Formats: sequence, structure tokens, C-alpha cells
Amino acid sequence: MLLILATNNQNKLREIREMLSDTALNVCGQREAGIDLAVEENGTTFAENAAIKAQAIFDLQSAKKQNCYVLADDSGLCVDALDGAPGVYSHRFAGEDATDAQRCEKLLSLMKAVPRAQRGAHFACAMCLIAPDGTQYAVEGRVDGCIGYAPHGENGFGYDPVFEINGRSFAEFTAEEKNAVSHRKRALEQVVALLMQQSL
Amino acid sequence: MLLILATNNQNKLREIREMLSDTALNVCGQREAGIDLAVEENGTTFAENAAIKAQAIFDLQSAKKQNCYVLADDSGLCVDALDGAPGVYSHRFAGEDATDAQRCEKLLSLMKAVPRAQRGAHFACAMCLIAPDGTQYAVEGRVDGCIGYAPHGENGFGYDPVFEINGRSFAEFTAEEKNAVSHRKRALEQVVALLMQQSL
Repeated sequence: MLLILATNNQNKLREIREMLSDTALNVCGQREAGIDLAVEENGTTFAENAAIKAQAIFDLQSAKKQNCYVLADDSGLCVDALDGAPGVYSHRFAGEDATDAQRCEKLLSLMKAVPRAQRGAHFACAMCLIAPDGTQYAVEGRVDGCIGYAPHGENGFGYDPVFEINGRSFAEFTAEEKNAVSHRKRALEQVVALLMQQSL
Repeated sequence: MLLILATNNQNKLREIREMLSDTALNVCGQREAGIDLAVEENGTTFAENAAIKAQAIFDLQSAKKQNCYVLADDSGLCVDALDGAPGVYSHRFAGEDATDAQRCEKLLSLMKAVPRAQRGAHFACAMCLIAPDGTQYAVEGRVDGCIGYAPHGENGFGYDPVFEINGRSFAEFTAEEKNAVSHRKRALEQVVALLMQQSL
């Protein structure tokens, strides 16, 4: 059976393909599935945004009478001292066309006066799985850390250079190290468990 | 000296007038100051929204060559289990035209499966004060509690019926009880301290 992932990101595709290798699912990205769709992510929570994306693609593939699963995710950084911001605004935090470096810079600037003990933050990843019968399943994974005082490291993307666990930034983690603890990994594990229960 | 409050809310006006009664400041709402301005609150944090409102009004009054302070606030509810949502979306959580009851209902529905120990939440209130010379000061107050399982109480507004402290909802607090601990009160206290330092 086919699982359409609501993304064109090759890294995400590879990661989920590996995790689902024990199932009989064939994972493909939305472009490979012939879907050219840009959905407005105007939800107020990560879970809402994931559901909006998954449902939009399910409605399309359903119209085409394909019998398959659809999986979408939405993720972001939530900083305690900023009341959970940037949150669902993570990608638009410094404006639509800003770079990762500009987003990190804005975040560090807002956190300038925040003492170390109050710099807690977490990455969250919500996933929405829609089964062929239209049933929606929602899961969420998170990883806790804190915001550093300057960007460090060359790996990863997004806010990774300023998100630290035990003094090392996510951008200093190898891909393997990050995948072992990441919010996306933890959400995916729950999706895999759900799919296993469906006895594929 | 005049302090223009970036609101037309009579409750907020009365509250801040009382708190500033020991200063030589004359507090008026934006309508009383002859300002008819609707600002788009498109910030990604409470602090940004407060600053956007305060600056818009300061720029107007400055143009009119009034020599005065401007104060604006932005506030909302941040729920731990929802990664800080509704946050800056607090007023638009269930759509632009939804009622307080609909917002509470949507929140409770999202929290249906969340156990008591994970229902932590806080109200946050950011304030931006702009001095006559254009200097911006930012403060924030918060009050911690948790989300109940059903709305309770008739007082207050917004999410008060579902925000609980020691088993009582904010809508069951009297106005005096709420003002004594509220996020807005705690932010205002810091504003008062700032104004005192300016030896008015």
C-alpha cells in the first residue's frame, strides 16, 4: 500500500522510508504522487497545520480514487521565555523571505537579557496520518533543550545552531545523533506504531 | 504629563488610572486623545504586538507634537500541552468572529485527552511603554494555572472560565481577587516602577 508524505523534502522522505522499511508501505513524496499543491498553513497549532496539509492531499488523492495513507507534519521551536513563540510562526518569525541565520539572530536578540536558567525551549513536531477510510490520527513528539547565546555548528537547519542540549547545539550533532532524539523521530515512532496496529 | 493608553477598553483604563494615581500622570484612552486607529497585530510575540500598537500611536501623537507617554499591551493564554498555543492567536483561535464561549469550547476539545498533570497553562501580558523622547521599554507579567475540564464561573472574559488556580476558575474570582494576581497587574506594576524611576 502507498503512503503519500505531504512534503517534497528529500531528507524527510529518506528518514521516514528508513523507519517504515519493516512495513509493506511504499512511501512517496507528494511530487512523486503527481500532486502539485501549496496549502496555506493558517492553523493556530502544529496539529492543526499538519491536519490541514494531510486533509488537502487526502481529498485530492481520494478524488483520484487512489487507496492510500497520507502523512503530514508541522514542526517548530517553542521558547519558554517567549511564551511559546516562535511556535507556529517558526518559519515566518523574521518575515516570509528571511534566512535561517536571520531567524536565529532575531531570536538571540529577543533573548539577550534572559538568564541561563530561564532559556528553556523545545522543538515540537505534530504529525497527522489519514488512513484510506478517512480516519485521522494525530501524534506529537518533542525534544527539550535551551537557547544558547550565539549560533554554533554547521549541521542541521533552521534553529539548530541556537538550540542546545547539554551545552552542544543541534547543529553540532551528527545526523545520526539528532535523529536518535529529535522531535520528528519521536512523532514518527508513534506513527509507525499506529501503522503497525493496522497490520499492514 | 499625559499617558495615552492604546485601548478604548474602559476596564483597562480604570485599572491603570488607579495604579498610577500616585504619579503626576494624566491617563487617557486613545479615543479621548482623538486617535482613531486600528493597527494590524501581526507580531509573532505578545511583546511585538504591544510594540507595534504603542509605536503606531506614538508616531501619530508625535506628529501632532504632543509631549506624552504611550502605553500598549497584548496578552493571551499559553497552554503547555499545545506548545504555547493559542498564544498570539488567543483572540482569533476559533476564527475572527468567534465568541469567548466558542474559543473555550475549542480549547477544551483539543485538551480532551490530556491528563490533569499535563494541563498547565499561563496567561501572559506584554506591555510596551514609549517615553516622550521615543525610548521603548518592554515588560511582561504572567500568572500560572491550569486548564479545567469544563467552563465555570460568570465573571471575567476570554478564557477565564477554563483557566483554573487551585481548583477555581478565573471567572469565579472576584475582580479584586483577579486583579491582585493577574498577568496584567504584574506587567502594570513593572510599568509603574519604570514611570516612578523617570521621577514624574
